[in-house]
Amino acid sequence: MTELKKTVLIMAGGRGTRFWPKSRKSLPKQFLSLTGDGKTMIQLTVERLLPLIDMEDIYISTNLDYKALVQKQLPDIPEENILCEPVGRNTAPCIGLGAIHIAKKYDDALMIVLPSDHQIKMKDLFCHTLEEACEIAVENKNIVQIGITPNYPETGYGYIKYLPKEKKGSAYKVEKFVEKPNVEKAREYLESNQYLWNAGQFIWKVSTVLAEMKEYMPDTYEHLMNIQEAIGTDGYEKVLNDEFRAMKSISIDYGVMEKAKDIYVIPGNFGWDDVGSWLAVGRLQKKNKEGNVIDGDVITINTEDSIIQGNNKLIAVVGLDNIIVVDTDDALLICDEDHAGEIRDVMKALEEKGREELL
Amino acid sequence: MTELKKTVLIMAGGRGTRFWPKSRKSLPKQFLSLTGDGKTMIQLTVERLLPLIDMEDIYISTNLDYKALVQKQLPDIPEENILCEPVGRNTAPCIGLGAIHIAKKYDDALMIVLPSDHQIKMKDLFCHTLEEACEIAVENKNIVQIGITPNYPETGYGYIKYLPKEKKGSAYKVEKFVEKPNVEKAREYLESNQYLWNAGQFIWKVSTVLAEMKEYMPDTYEHLMNIQEAIGTDGYEKVLNDEFRAMKSISIDYGVMEKAKDIYVIPGNFGWDDVGSWLAVGRLQKKNKEGNVIDGDVITINTEDSIIQGNNKLIAVVGLDNIIVVDTDDALLICDEDHAGEIRDVMKALEEKGREELL
Repeated sequence: MTELKKTVLIMAGGRGTRFWPKSRKSLPKQFLSLTGDGKTMIQLTVERLLPLIDMEDIYISTNLDYKALVQKQLPDIPEENILCEPVGRNTAPCIGLGAIHIAKKYDDALMIVLPSDHQIKMKDLFCHTLEEACEIAVENKNIVQIGITPNYPETGYGYIKYLPKEKKGSAYKVEKFVEKPNVEKAREYLESNQYLWNAGQFIWKVSTVLAEMKEYMPDTYEHLMNIQEAIGTDGYEKVLNDEFRAMKSISIDYGVMEKAKDIYVIPGNFGWDDVGSWLAVGRLQKKNKEGNVIDGDVITINTEDSIIQGNNKLIAVVGLDNIIVVDTDDALLICDEDHAGEIRDVMKALEEKGREELL
Repeated sequence: MTELKKTVLIMAGGRGTRFWPKSRKSLPKQFLSLTGDGKTMIQLTVERLLPLIDMEDIYISTNLDYKALVQKQLPDIPEENILCEPVGRNTAPCIGLGAIHIAKKYDDALMIVLPSDHQIKMKDLFCHTLEEACEIAVENKNIVQIGITPNYPETGYGYIKYLPKEKKGSAYKVEKFVEKPNVEKAREYLESNQYLWNAGQFIWKVSTVLAEMKEYMPDTYEHLMNIQEAIGTDGYEKVLNDEFRAMKSISIDYGVMEKAKDIYVIPGNFGWDDVGSWLAVGRLQKKNKEGNVIDGDVITINTEDSIIQGNNKLIAVVGLDNIIVVDTDDALLICDEDHAGEIRDVMKALEEKGREELL
């Protein structure tokens, strides 16, 4: 087996606001500490890769607004590995940008692509799974994904259908990708045992992904080549800005995965959680004997199964179950857990009122 | 009918903390604005008496800790009318202290005794009721109380049983006073139509109440006479301090009312509310179309029938009904309305933790 350098691209450009009021446009989820260990999501993402990948081979794609945050939270990542998109263009251009930077540094290399804001409990299993994926990606020039074994009929993720009989190592050949289903479809997928959640984790050789982009996204590929040529030159920033803006906004799933052949998927069982809302904090952090997850100066009376994140004053909660309380310097959220999805309505209201400073 | 000067003693020494975190030991309920008009309870109490009583005849009994608050909130009350108890000794010594001060100023006078922290919606009716009470108090040297017509079986108040056939003007002779009942008794009282709530509103001549105290509380009376002698002298503070501390702690109900003869009660129907907890704010203040009483910078989503008192940050409440939210600089309360009584458990917890600064 060819020994190829392992590199990773961590995608950290997201502006998600489901952790309002802690997450803001200026401080999205990947830069927050949500799992109770004091480290931010992106710090944990890097940390769990270190047994597998050298710090100098870890690339972070983000946008200019967050560059300082990345540097502050990840001071050991080389500055040239922080790839700033001039504008958001979804995952395909983002991954392409990572690929050309890695290709400039190494003739070829293994490239792992990961989100920056997911939680993985069993780090060893995760690393082993990535190693297996790398082997398959190298041997047959395959695209490999890690799919998450579903345990309930989630309607918020895409699904990957695999062929149980076409196995290569611990990976299965992908039959097809399917979009976020309705709840009936999701139940069907769950019961069929032939679907995995698409968690946005990709493994391929840089040469493989660039070849696929050349075939299925020739325009994007051309822009990427123009950028690659400018890497290391004085004109890089301008070229990046012009070429990146000229690219179409398109996801890697739509641009490559749904078209490419011979994709393999490894079922991942390493305690994955997408930490999609405040409810995840209740799932992931240590609960006290009343079932509460508490941070800060808090007194609870007859209050159970709640998430209470204090700031700099005492919070007393009396006679309320299943609530989310998040206090910050300028905004306080009090939310029933069953209504967590409506936090977005708060943000909508703030937007309508022109309260940009709170978003 | 003899024309006697009308005076009032407003009792404002209470340290009630049911409005925590707004009420504190250093800022009890009577000094808070709770009814939505920007005025504090004690300011409203004084204001509604002005058609009936001259400012110079309004006395406030409180304790030294609150003297500055009284002066700040009621700058027109003469300083010598602010009677500071050196120590709390319940209502009988408090009323006695007021009586001797009024007796020192006027040979005799009508004395109305009122709590400082109740709400009365119909001020005209209230004043008319007091006038009627004054007439009865003068004509026959009677003790007169205003009793509140009950509209539900409250277990938190004492009750006054009256004799429906022994009428004098609009007042009825009192048969007896009864302590706070259990809910069964309270239902019985409500259905019998012969009981009124004891709201701590008394009307008598100063000479009457002092004569009653002399008869039923001779020790207290003697201490009071010693204090009275020192009024206006340099030694007043010391005498007050010594004699007041020497008095037994006893309520006027127990010390006088339950023993005195020929007490009359007028049923009061002037929109009385004792503003006993945060729930009263929901009863008394203007609700918006979702049934919420809101003060401050607040966004509600799917939230009804709640009381939300903001401070200096945005509060977003999502998917919660019937809750109380009170934000202050150093403490935040979030409480289910059905559990409002457990706010005292928060205070107990704070006390146990030695968090005096928050009490």
